[in-house]
Amino acid sequence: MNYAEESLKKHYEWRGKIEVAQRVEVKSKEDLSLAYTPGVATPCLEIQKDESKSYELTRRWNTVAVITDGTAVLGLGDIGPVAGMPVMEGKALLFKAFGDVDAIPLCIKSKDVDELVRTIYLLSGSFGGINLEDISAPRCFEVERRLKEICDIPVFHDDQHGTAIVLGATLLNALKVVRKEIGAVRVVINGAGSAGIAIASFLLKMGVRDMILCDKAGTLYEGKEGMTFAQEELARITNQEKLDGSLADAMRGADVFIGVSAPGIVSKEMVASMRAGAIVFPMANPTPEIAPDLALEAGAAVVGTGRSDFKNQINNVLAFPGIFRGALDARASAITEDMKLAAAYGIASLVSSEELSADYIIPKAFDERVGKTVAKAVYDCAVATGIARIQ
Amino acid sequence: MNYAEESLKKHYEWRGKIEVAQRVEVKSKEDLSLAYTPGVATPCLEIQKDESKSYELTRRWNTVAVITDGTAVLGLGDIGPVAGMPVMEGKALLFKAFGDVDAIPLCIKSKDVDELVRTIYLLSGSFGGINLEDISAPRCFEVERRLKEICDIPVFHDDQHGTAIVLGATLLNALKVVRKEIGAVRVVINGAGSAGIAIASFLLKMGVRDMILCDKAGTLYEGKEGMTFAQEELARITNQEKLDGSLADAMRGADVFIGVSAPGIVSKEMVASMRAGAIVFPMANPTPEIAPDLALEAGAAVVGTGRSDFKNQINNVLAFPGIFRGALDARASAITEDMKLAAAYGIASLVSSEELSADYIIPKAFDERVGKTVAKAVYDCAVATGIARIQ
Repeated sequence: MNYAEESLKKHYEWRGKIEVAQRVEVKSKEDLSLAYTPGVATPCLEIQKDESKSYELTRRWNTVAVITDGTAVLGLGDIGPVAGMPVMEGKALLFKAFGDVDAIPLCIKSKDVDELVRTIYLLSGSFGGINLEDISAPRCFEVERRLKEICDIPVFHDDQHGTAIVLGATLLNALKVVRKEIGAVRVVINGAGSAGIAIASFLLKMGVRDMILCDKAGTLYEGKEGMTFAQEELARITNQEKLDGSLADAMRGADVFIGVSAPGIVSKEMVASMRAGAIVFPMANPTPEIAPDLALEAGAAVVGTGRSDFKNQINNVLAFPGIFRGALDARASAITEDMKLAAAYGIASLVSSEELSADYIIPKAFDERVGKTVAKAVYDCAVATGIARIQ
Repeated sequence: MNYAEESLKKHYEWRGKIEVAQRVEVKSKEDLSLAYTPGVATPCLEIQKDESKSYELTRRWNTVAVITDGTAVLGLGDIGPVAGMPVMEGKALLFKAFGDVDAIPLCIKSKDVDELVRTIYLLSGSFGGINLEDISAPRCFEVERRLKEICDIPVFHDDQHGTAIVLGATLLNALKVVRKEIGAVRVVINGAGSAGIAIASFLLKMGVRDMILCDKAGTLYEGKEGMTFAQEELARITNQEKLDGSLADAMRGADVFIGVSAPGIVSKEMVASMRAGAIVFPMANPTPEIAPDLALEAGAAVVGTGRSDFKNQINNVLAFPGIFRGALDARASAITEDMKLAAAYGIASLVSSEELSADYIIPKAFDERVGKTVAKAVYDCAVATGIARIQ
């Protein structure tokens, strides 16, 4: 199928992928008096007395904003806030379909970090959580960090953390296939934008100790010129040998390759230069860093990509609906590192040791157990670590 | 029924009066590829090329924001943005039930005019229209005026214009009952906040020539001390005799009384002092300026209030769903004075000359013809006056 053409046709037919639905009938004067004036004054006054009642008397407990500034939409770059809305609506659709979360797509006509932070903060009383989406690096790091400081609801940049969590889950199972320990492998990540940075940080928390990040200018190392703040921070704690070289140099002898970069930039020779039992995750979309069949021919033991038409699809939809479902159910004040780790282990746990093979290391997007399992793991973690505001 | 108690109970049961609904199934990889990646890139790029396509490829064409800062919620005053959300959700429910409009309830945690304007403007690309709600006067005037200048979508403060339009429609029919001409009656309005100012301005546009506004300090006249900017503007073109007196003084010999003020402040004597064929609209809620039976005893010919349990209910729900329905269908860039007048005449037209009586001057809230009639009147007016952006 020609997805580009067919999707456009469908979007013209759909005229919106989500809509607002009534949960209450308004068929009589009584109905109107209860759902609206004069009755509605009482729930208002209850919330005025105790703001936490907004989670019981309005839809806040189940509502998340999906917010973009349109600066890094899919792989399309800075196409503008309004042009990003089909993706936000799509995300809202997936939130409902996979997590029963009510998500409101919003775009903000500003690229200014201060203004983005302030605008989202001012709206935060309307929602139980904020999902940031398709905001370009390095602005996305500051927007998220500052919002987390001032908001009392979860703020989650899915392009960073959703990707990192699903990749983390996939890596856990891939390591079981090749019988290697997470603390003993060398991981090379190519691409040091928002996804690459988030993956690197998350894998370090998961126990990876030997890691090299690369970007277009080759390996990142402490003291290298021209790095962003986030890259500098990671360079201090990765690439301890200060290897100054190309991606090919970094991959030589590595156990794991993770690509969030550009199509076709990894050759068979580069994969062949990795250690035996190599794990290769070329996630550039739609065209991976190396085609899966080439990677396997070159000796990779396990391959996963972002695409649904290859085996082992590393797909964010495995994470974000369940993560917000669990966070909302716990009325969590944040989505913490512990909750993200719980989500990753939850996803990985759905592939049993009997099923596990090089061709099946991660559950399918439509595996109905995923959302519930992730939600429960995140909820339990929020309760256990004191992040939950509900008993 | 004790609405206060019963409504609170219902709100706890409902846990939200609206929710997000899928318009598209996501049951297969194909579905996912069309509604989300990779297919969704194509509609994004179409909108990047031509932003007006957002009205065809997303839900924008049918979506309105219902926005408050929580400073003038119902008659409760400044109860805060989050506490205002049950009203915003209720309004969103009525938008769907009466106009099939998808409305998104939002509250903003700021009372600063600049910040409100900026925040709403930055979000305006997400919506086909903005319904401002429960923002206190005089800030609401400036917020609306400035937003109308900078936004290319309709911005409508319902507390002002919705009330004015429905009141205007009611007055048109009441005048028919008492056989008086709109250009020949004296109108007294008590209450010079957002609703009173809006009603005064609108009735002037409808053809009223003799009008006196009053507030707690008595009649407003040109040069009076302590008036707001909006009051000063109106004082210049009303009360041409510069009557400096009490509400009772103003009502003596008047044809129409309109109250948007406080309970019980109009006496039988004051109504009795009006001209024969007096029209009395005491709209303070829940307790009117004078009870309808007392006004009738005092000689009023026609009485209407804001309450559903008396005859002739002047209810905003007659206006806003149809107004936005018509404006959205026309993809209007604004809701103009002409469109508001068209709405008022449309509502009034639904009471036929055979049905018209002192007890029936305005259609019922649940009259199914209302939304459609208002929508058509507003749509036709938008097209005829060049405000429509659709043919």
